[in-house]
Amino acid sequence: MKNFFEAKSIAVVGVSREPNKVGAILFNQLLRNFKGDVYGVNPNVNSLYGNKIYKKLSDINKKIDLTVIAVPAAFVIDIIKEMPSVNCKNVVIISAGFKEIGNDKLELKLKEELDQRNIKAVGVNCLGIYDAYSGIDAIFLPSERVQRPGKGGISFICQSGAIGGAILDLMASKNYGVSKFISFGNATNLDSVDYLDYLGKDKNTKVICVYIEAVKDGKKCLEICKNIKKPVIVLKGGLTHEGNKATLSHTGALAGDPRVYLGAFKQAGTVYAENLEDMFNYSRLLEKSIKPKGDRILTITNGGGFGILGTDNIIKYGLKLAELSSETKKKLKEKFPKLVIVDNPMDLIGDATDERYGLALEYAVKDKNIDIILITLDYQTPLLTPNIVNVISKYKNKKPIIVASTGGSPTEKIKRILESRGIVCFDYPETAVRSIKQLVEYHK
Amino acid sequence: MKNFFEAKSIAVVGVSREPNKVGAILFNQLLRNFKGDVYGVNPNVNSLYGNKIYKKLSDINKKIDLTVIAVPAAFVIDIIKEMPSVNCKNVVIISAGFKEIGNDKLELKLKEELDQRNIKAVGVNCLGIYDAYSGIDAIFLPSERVQRPGKGGISFICQSGAIGGAILDLMASKNYGVSKFISFGNATNLDSVDYLDYLGKDKNTKVICVYIEAVKDGKKCLEICKNIKKPVIVLKGGLTHEGNKATLSHTGALAGDPRVYLGAFKQAGTVYAENLEDMFNYSRLLEKSIKPKGDRILTITNGGGFGILGTDNIIKYGLKLAELSSETKKKLKEKFPKLVIVDNPMDLIGDATDERYGLALEYAVKDKNIDIILITLDYQTPLLTPNIVNVISKYKNKKPIIVASTGGSPTEKIKRILESRGIVCFDYPETAVRSIKQLVEYHK
Repeated sequence: MKNFFEAKSIAVVGVSREPNKVGAILFNQLLRNFKGDVYGVNPNVNSLYGNKIYKKLSDINKKIDLTVIAVPAAFVIDIIKEMPSVNCKNVVIISAGFKEIGNDKLELKLKEELDQRNIKAVGVNCLGIYDAYSGIDAIFLPSERVQRPGKGGISFICQSGAIGGAILDLMASKNYGVSKFISFGNATNLDSVDYLDYLGKDKNTKVICVYIEAVKDGKKCLEICKNIKKPVIVLKGGLTHEGNKATLSHTGALAGDPRVYLGAFKQAGTVYAENLEDMFNYSRLLEKSIKPKGDRILTITNGGGFGILGTDNIIKYGLKLAELSSETKKKLKEKFPKLVIVDNPMDLIGDATDERYGLALEYAVKDKNIDIILITLDYQTPLLTPNIVNVISKYKNKKPIIVASTGGSPTEKIKRILESRGIVCFDYPETAVRSIKQLVEYHK
Repeated sequence: MKNFFEAKSIAVVGVSREPNKVGAILFNQLLRNFKGDVYGVNPNVNSLYGNKIYKKLSDINKKIDLTVIAVPAAFVIDIIKEMPSVNCKNVVIISAGFKEIGNDKLELKLKEELDQRNIKAVGVNCLGIYDAYSGIDAIFLPSERVQRPGKGGISFICQSGAIGGAILDLMASKNYGVSKFISFGNATNLDSVDYLDYLGKDKNTKVICVYIEAVKDGKKCLEICKNIKKPVIVLKGGLTHEGNKATLSHTGALAGDPRVYLGAFKQAGTVYAENLEDMFNYSRLLEKSIKPKGDRILTITNGGGFGILGTDNIIKYGLKLAELSSETKKKLKEKFPKLVIVDNPMDLIGDATDERYGLALEYAVKDKNIDIILITLDYQTPLLTPNIVNVISKYKNKKPIIVASTGGSPTEKIKRILESRGIVCFDYPETAVRSIKQLVEYHK
C-alpha cells in the first residue's frame, strides 16, 4: 500500500472530454492537488486541460507508480496487461460491473491477471483513494460535491463508496482532518486486512475507521487488529440478516454471521460503532483526547438541566461520578458565590462568568479524584464571553476535557473555535458521554 | 394559562438601566416583539428606552393582564400584594432564591399569598414564557444569545431554563417554528399539569415537548396526558438515582422513582425521549409527518451502503421491510437501467438522476405494500441536481417520506430546502429510523 500513497507519477486511464465523467473528474482532481506527474490515457482524445493525452498506457514510456482505471469493466483486463510496460505494480480500479452484478467470472479472471503480474489493486467498484498529506486525490467525485478534508490523524477504510464520500464531506465541513482514505469496493485483490496492516504502521494515522460489509479472512483480520497500537473503529454494514442480504448486490460479498463479527472485533480490541454518527464521534474523540487515568467524570455546567442530563448519562453508560476531594470543595466554596453548587454536577449557575469556569477548571484538573472533565456549556447565559474558549483550552493538556453544548449559531461558533484548539465538542450531553465511554474503554 | 398568552398589557417589575440585567432584557424584548402595551416598574428609574418607568406597580393605574417579576426573592411577595391594584391575576416570576437554595419557607409563604389572591404564577426560578404567535416574549435571555424561533406547531414545557433556552436557540437556527414555550422552574403554583392541560387545547400546538425533573401530582398528570389528542414527548431529567439527587438543588423538587415515571408516561400514551436529541428529532417528525398506515418501510437510496444501514436500522428498531408488489417490481425493472436494484433497499446506484428518484417515488407511493418511504439520499453523486427537492416534495402528501442524508454544506443546503417544504430530514439513517419508530408507535 505504501507505494500507492507515495507514488510520484500517476496515470489515469479513461480520461474524458465530458467533465462529469469519472475519468475526467479523476484527472482534474489529480492535476489540481497532486504534486507529482499526472498522465491521461484515452485512444480518442489528443489533449485535455492543456495536457497531452496518450493513446495507450504503454505509450507513456516512463515509469508509472500508480495507475487509476476508469474504463468499462470489459476493458479493464486489457489495461492490466499493459501495466508491466510502464513498470507499474499498483492500480486503483474504479470500474464497476463485476461480481456485484453477477459477473463473477470476469472478476475471477481479473484477479488471476493481477496475481500473475504481481499487481496490487484497490477496487474494483470503488470510489478511489485519497491522501491529505501527499495530495493523491484519486476519488471520482468532484470536490464541489465531496469536499476534501485537510491533514489530520483519522484514516478511513470504506467498503462503500457512498459512505466514504459522505464521511469525507462531513469531516471537511466540520474542519476535521484526515490522513488516508481508501474505498475498496469488491476487494478483488487487496482486502481490508491489507489496508489495516498498512494504516496500522502509517505514522500520520492516529485512528483507523473501518466501514465494512464482509471480511474475507476473518482470522487474519482479527490478528492484525490485535497488533495495531492505535484505535480501530469498526462499523459493520449488514449486521442484520436483512441488511446482510442487501450487501450481496452491493459489493458482491455475502457477509457472514453478524454475531461472529461482533465477537471477533471485540476480542481484537477494536471499538465498535453502532452507527455512522458514532463512528464520526468516536474517531474525533479518540484522535484528539489525551489518555484518561480512569473513568471518574466531573460534570461542570452553568445550566442546571444540562448537569443533570450529563449525570444521568454517566450512570447510564456505566461510568463513575467523580467525588470532589474535600480540599477542592473547601477552596471552591470559599471562592464561589453562595448559590454555586460545588458538587458533581458542579453548577456554576446562570450568572456564571468565564472566570468562574476558570476557577472550577483550575481546581478540577488538580483534584486527583477526577479523571475526566465534561463541560456541559450553556452559552446562552448573558455573562459568558467568547473568551471562554481560552479559559477552557488552557487546561486541555492536564486532563481530558470534553465539551457538550446545545444551541444555535453563537454556540456553534464557540464549539468550532474550541475544536480548532483541540477540544472535542458534542451537540448533546448524551453523545458526549457515549463517546467518553469508548475513550475510557479503549485506554483501559 | 390562556390569559398569559392572550395578554394585551404587560408590566415588567424590576426593569434596570443596566442592559445585561434580567429586568432590562425582559423589558427590551417585550418592547421589540409585543404588540400590546408594556409598562416598566422600578422605584429608582424614571424612564428607560424612551418609556416612562413607574415607581410602583399600583402607580400604573390601568388594568394589567400579565405581570413579569424580576426582583430579588425577598421583594417578590410585596409585588404580589400590589397585583390586585391593577386587577392582575397572572404573573411570571423569574426571581430565583427560593426552595432550590433551601428557602422553603419563603416559597411556601409566596404560594400562600398567591393562592389567597387567586393569582396564577409561572415560576419561580424560571426563564419565562414565549409565544411566537402573540409576540409575548418574557424570556430573560437576549435574542442575541437565544434566537427566537418563528411560528410553528411545537410547544415546550421546560422545568430547566437552560435546556429550554438551548432548545429554543437550536429550533430557531434549524428553521423550526414553535407555538408556546414555558419554562416553569420550581412550579410554586402552576405545575406541569396545568401547562399540559392548556397546550392540549391550544390550537396552534401540534406537538408538546416536556422536559421535566419532578411531577407533583403524578396521577393527574397521567390522566391529562391520556386525554391529550396530540403527541406529548417527555424527557425526564434525573432518571438515574444520581441525576435524581442533583435535581434537588436545581429546581428544589426531589424527583420520584424513575421507573414509576417511565411506566406512567408510557401508559399515558406519551412518547418517551431518551435524550435531548431524540426530543428534537421526534418533535420535528411528529409535527410534520402525515400519519403512516403501518410500519412497512421502503428504503430508496443512490448509495448502496446507506441502503444497507437503513435496512439494518429498520430491523434493529423492530419495524418491517416493505416488500414491493410484483406490479411495482415489473414496472420499475422495465424503466430502470439494468444495474439498478429494484428491491428493498432500492438502490438507484451512483449514476442516479433526479428523474430516476422521481420514477422510484411515483411507484412507491402507489404501491399498497409500502407504508413509509425512507430516502437515504447520497447528494455527493454527480448527476443529482438541486431539483431533487422538487422531485421529492411532489409526493409528500401521499405517504410519509423521510430523508436521511450525511454530508457537508451542499447536503445541508438540500436538507434545509426539503425541510422548508415540510419534508423532515435527518443527518444519519439511524436517527431517521429511530424517529420513524416513534411516529409508527404514536399512530398505532
